[in-house]
Amino acid sequence: MWKLWRYAVVLVALVVSSALATAQQTEPTLNLMPVPKSLELTGGQFRLNDSFTMEITGNAKQRLYRYASRILRRLSGRTGLFFDQDYITPETQPQNPSMIIHADHPDTVRLGMDESYHLEITADAIRLTAHTDIGAMRGLETFLQLLSNDPGGYYFPGVTIQDAPRFPWRGLLLDVGRHFMPVKVVKRNLDGLAAMKMNVLHWHLTEDQGFRVESKTFPKLQQLGSDGKYYTQDQIKDIIRYARDRGIRIVPEFDMPGHTTSWFVGYPELASAPGPYHISRTWGIHNAAMDPTKDSTYEFLDQFFAEMSRLFPDEYMHIGGDEVNGKQWDANQDIQAFMKAHNIPDNHQLQAYFNKRILQILTKYNKRMVGWEEILQPGLPKNIVIQSWLGTKSLVEAAKKGYQSMLSNGYYIDLVQPTSYHYLNDPVPGDADLTPEEQQLILGGEATMWSELVTPETVDSRIWPRTAAIAERFWSPADVRDVADMYRRLKPVSLHLEELGLTHLKNYGMMLRRLTNGDDITALKTLVDVVEPVEGYARHRRPYTSYSPYTRVVDAARPDAAVARHFRNLVADYLQDPTREKAGQIKVWLARWKNNHETLMETIGHSPVLREIAPLSETLRDVAGVGLEAIDYLQTESTPPADWLDTNMVILQNAEKPQAEVELRIVSAVEKLATTVGAQK
Amino acid sequence: MWKLWRYAVVLVALVVSSALATAQQTEPTLNLMPVPKSLELTGGQFRLNDSFTMEITGNAKQRLYRYASRILRRLSGRTGLFFDQDYITPETQPQNPSMIIHADHPDTVRLGMDESYHLEITADAIRLTAHTDIGAMRGLETFLQLLSNDPGGYYFPGVTIQDAPRFPWRGLLLDVGRHFMPVKVVKRNLDGLAAMKMNVLHWHLTEDQGFRVESKTFPKLQQLGSDGKYYTQDQIKDIIRYARDRGIRIVPEFDMPGHTTSWFVGYPELASAPGPYHISRTWGIHNAAMDPTKDSTYEFLDQFFAEMSRLFPDEYMHIGGDEVNGKQWDANQDIQAFMKAHNIPDNHQLQAYFNKRILQILTKYNKRMVGWEEILQPGLPKNIVIQSWLGTKSLVEAAKKGYQSMLSNGYYIDLVQPTSYHYLNDPVPGDADLTPEEQQLILGGEATMWSELVTPETVDSRIWPRTAAIAERFWSPADVRDVADMYRRLKPVSLHLEELGLTHLKNYGMMLRRLTNGDDITALKTLVDVVEPVEGYARHRRPYTSYSPYTRVVDAARPDAAVARHFRNLVADYLQDPTREKAGQIKVWLARWKNNHETLMETIGHSPVLREIAPLSETLRDVAGVGLEAIDYLQTESTPPADWLDTNMVILQNAEKPQAEVELRIVSAVEKLATTVGAQK
Repeated sequence: MWKLWRYAVVLVALVVSSALATAQQTEPTLNLMPVPKSLELTGGQFRLNDSFTMEITGNAKQRLYRYASRILRRLSGRTGLFFDQDYITPETQPQNPSMIIHADHPDTVRLGMDESYHLEITADAIRLTAHTDIGAMRGLETFLQLLSNDPGGYYFPGVTIQDAPRFPWRGLLLDVGRHFMPVKVVKRNLDGLAAMKMNVLHWHLTEDQGFRVESKTFPKLQQLGSDGKYYTQDQIKDIIRYARDRGIRIVPEFDMPGHTTSWFVGYPELASAPGPYHISRTWGIHNAAMDPTKDSTYEFLDQFFAEMSRLFPDEYMHIGGDEVNGKQWDANQDIQAFMKAHNIPDNHQLQAYFNKRILQILTKYNKRMVGWEEILQPGLPKNIVIQSWLGTKSLVEAAKKGYQSMLSNGYYIDLVQPTSYHYLNDPVPGDADLTPEEQQLILGGEATMWSELVTPETVDSRIWPRTAAIAERFWSPADVRDVADMYRRLKPVSLHLEELGLTHLKNYGMMLRRLTNGDDITALKTLVDVVEPVEGYARHRRPYTSYSPYTRVVDAARPDAAVARHFRNLVADYLQDPTREKAGQIKVWLARWKNNHETLMETIGHSPVLREIAPLSETLRDVAGVGLEAIDYLQTESTPPADWLDTNMVILQNAEKPQAEVELRIVSAVEKLATTVGAQK
Repeated sequence: MWKLWRYAVVLVALVVSSALATAQQTEPTLNLMPVPKSLELTGGQFRLNDSFTMEITGNAKQRLYRYASRILRRLSGRTGLFFDQDYITPETQPQNPSMIIHADHPDTVRLGMDESYHLEITADAIRLTAHTDIGAMRGLETFLQLLSNDPGGYYFPGVTIQDAPRFPWRGLLLDVGRHFMPVKVVKRNLDGLAAMKMNVLHWHLTEDQGFRVESKTFPKLQQLGSDGKYYTQDQIKDIIRYARDRGIRIVPEFDMPGHTTSWFVGYPELASAPGPYHISRTWGIHNAAMDPTKDSTYEFLDQFFAEMSRLFPDEYMHIGGDEVNGKQWDANQDIQAFMKAHNIPDNHQLQAYFNKRILQILTKYNKRMVGWEEILQPGLPKNIVIQSWLGTKSLVEAAKKGYQSMLSNGYYIDLVQPTSYHYLNDPVPGDADLTPEEQQLILGGEATMWSELVTPETVDSRIWPRTAAIAERFWSPADVRDVADMYRRLKPVSLHLEELGLTHLKNYGMMLRRLTNGDDITALKTLVDVVEPVEGYARHRRPYTSYSPYTRVVDAARPDAAVARHFRNLVADYLQDPTREKAGQIKVWLARWKNNHETLMETIGHSPVLREIAPLSETLRDVAGVGLEAIDYLQTESTPPADWLDTNMVILQNAEKPQAEVELRIVSAVEKLATTVGAQK
């Protein structure tokens, strides 16, 4: 699901979105993410101490007791308070509970489940009420985010919150086909999703590079198609249970008829060209495709989906359907003859024929079909769901035709774009001319974590914290769009995600330690703090494979580098309203970067893997040098030599070019300083 | 398995062992841990580049191919080299391999398996040969540790290594009863053990606080005895497979007749006193014990061990047997009557009776019995194994009586003692008067990770890196005892353990971030870098439970604090051979600590959980102040006021006292500076 020609589109969207700042919130947002539908500060504080207890009332399943117990432990972990209450169980309800959690009834984890809740905190009591246990879980996460402190200790502010999601389908796609992600990676990310009130894990389970599910009906699928890296059915059941305990649906994807090389290693008879096939180690669009003209293909898939329908309880099943290049079909005489005989004019129609037959199978097993937008062909019934990865245009189109749909375009987190870009990308574009009924058909969206360039070590850093902002886009009212406030809240949210075992912060230091080979990481960190991996598909210029090292500086570097963003904001702020203090802060940063090079070169001397960044380090030194000169000119309001700007803009423009597959993200700010100096003349 | 009265013993041992420095190595140790039996540097270098390939010859199972493939990936990860070779498989052997790995035959993972290997590296080729695939695995870890670099890039030094372990039983006990450790924790620690050439995971699976194994015969064991925190049989099989793939035995422990409260929640009829029972939440020795007088007890255990013997393939099964306080037996009339009728004079003999009946059951299922030294009672046959936790005395005694035994005393890593203490603790004491045959009976030892005070978040930091030094004690020749050299090697080893997913380094930053509540962690880290959790059983003065928070400063603090050790060495070195440069280094540290207090107090102001360390921070400031004064007097060779030493020794002696359950580990060094000043008069 990636194409180089898409890069241009992405870039344009990016430029548009980085026109910052939008509508101002009218309600306080505290440290909440996603922001609730309505929040009122009612004054007063509920003071927290170790006698705090929770009681669950109404009609709730065990899973809500488990959820509440986990919340209590996280609260204890953050505060260091030794609560008297151990676990919350129906048998051990406290006498005078500090907090009452009420759920009218348990709900099934399904599309459209009721996730609303009402939270009321006063000085004396906390009351969380919800129609369903799922709603109560969402409210418990809000409750935890409200934890505050002052010189007197910990407290919860008095609030009345009424909350419900804007969209019912709020997902993360995790590609475990290209790089396998062990159970622990899936589980910790499910915890992250629950904390952000997301409710779908779209599990991309099969790819050219690996078939990741145990099939008992066709065991060669995983035996020959996975390098031993697959989930047993027991592990899958365990994960489904884990997700259900958190109010999250698991929607499996079996991508077909393309992206299927790994199927063909064990079952070459499914393919449109003779084998033998080997598990693919390279990325990109492959030729391998199922033969849609043979009855035996459908007999195989019928049995396969019979098994998978039993394994995966969700009503929806994703069949992919993207990126079939048709080369195997074109080259196969039998397929060509079949198309002629059945009046199938082209490969698009052939795929439509395939999809209809798959739909019959899925329908037989009481599943509803989801597919990438390529599957949207005339003649398909209206009960399928279209996932748009090419743009909102097709999303709107699908809705107008009466199809349910959801958006992934603009949420491709594998492309390492800024959080703000994803955040401002709305599933229902402002200019969409849709009736309320048509709008209802837009179910929400999914962040997509394609895994060509990530491993279990780095994947969290590509998902988090940016996906928290996407979660807010899917949950909160459409007018919650204050980028600065989003970034303010993203910092504490990111820290709190760590307590769930997510490694997006802690693996950074770990990777830098490995890169320095035991040396002090300070100088390396100073550099890597202000770089980002090249965006979009630029990294694919190098022929990466599934067994390449993903442990270099570009892998340690993180999207939307916070230090660089801080510096850019500092400069923008200074240029708008220059003060001596702001200039001082800017100079501290610049001086640090200028002086970093020598120390970093020593580190590089002990670690050959770092050699590729030696020129980059020099660039940072030079850019910082220009910045220091610029700010001196600005502070002294003096005029630089005639060629100062031209000479230095050459340096800066060169510095914009990626080196070692990363980009220095402070150059634009220094350019602004330099051009302001230039304008002073 | 912990008693307060043991603390005294531990302390004495500690004092003895900290009499540093011992025999000097005669052979180079490079960065190897454990040090091989013999190593010769032969000159020359094998230069590493991306054309490096491995071939496996001889007769090896798939698991060696998998092991070698993992080594290749780790090598790629460390160096950033894009190797051409993807996976090492029998089908895809390279043409001109850079490295040949030869194993004569696969071995069974069992006590006494052949783990020896021979590694030869020249400028042109690398050859690893072993009798067994397990030996080859051990050699592969040595190979990876030899990776070196110079300005020309990466290389392996020319060596000839002949290696084999000193002891055949080299284990880690992991207590998952008191705090449950999920599958991921077990797996990453198995990887750590393999990297350190350890070969036993002693899995302490049942405790008063939890029954952690799925029993299909007696499902109420886990259903009512675990809070839902147990391993399914599928997970257990998966872990056994994972361990076997790494040449590691899994020895399960089912502790009985004491430590069994969690069994009795579901099956109170097993107990010596009527129920109902609840899962225990507190630590310490409990009264609950099985009734050894009822046939029904043995009928139950027969069925239970029948099931567990099928599940766990290792020949050895641990039945615990420790810490039965006998109170339930004393109070039970039927038991008293039984003892009288059978001429059983005391509870010791009653337990011996129990053990003999259990031994019969285990023997029936072809298992050999292992137990804590309490089980060593007259009349037990010689094919059992005694695990000593009280001291080497009983170990030697067992050997003299003809029993196999292994040592855990001195390897209680839960007591957060210095690495050097464990390192110098030898399973065969120098003064042991044993024949060679008796010495053979001492199989090795185990580090014991009891889990009262650790959680999945902190457990790795209590196991690693100290267990690497224990691994060396069990593997390397007895005369490898250079403490300074051990610490030198421990640093790179600790870093490399990170790449296996171990969290002993990276969770430190994570915990500090949570403690500062989003504030900068620098000031907090400056303090916590020089403290250690109180040693031994001192923390149990506070009534911790299984649901207490283990997220405070004492939990973030790490055993054998490296910065504190560095400072103590610096001071010792300075006092022996004072130079201006060393004094300067000492002053930099002292000044940092003195100036830390104000910043840290700001951090504490934003985070109530940190308030408990405010006095400690003040103490650090004061101690550093004394240190700075002392070093000034020493440098200027001037005489302090008459009461200077007395006044300041009061400050320092107070500073030795634990605060917030941690100890400042730089005080002793400052005391040395101060008393040296005092002696100057």
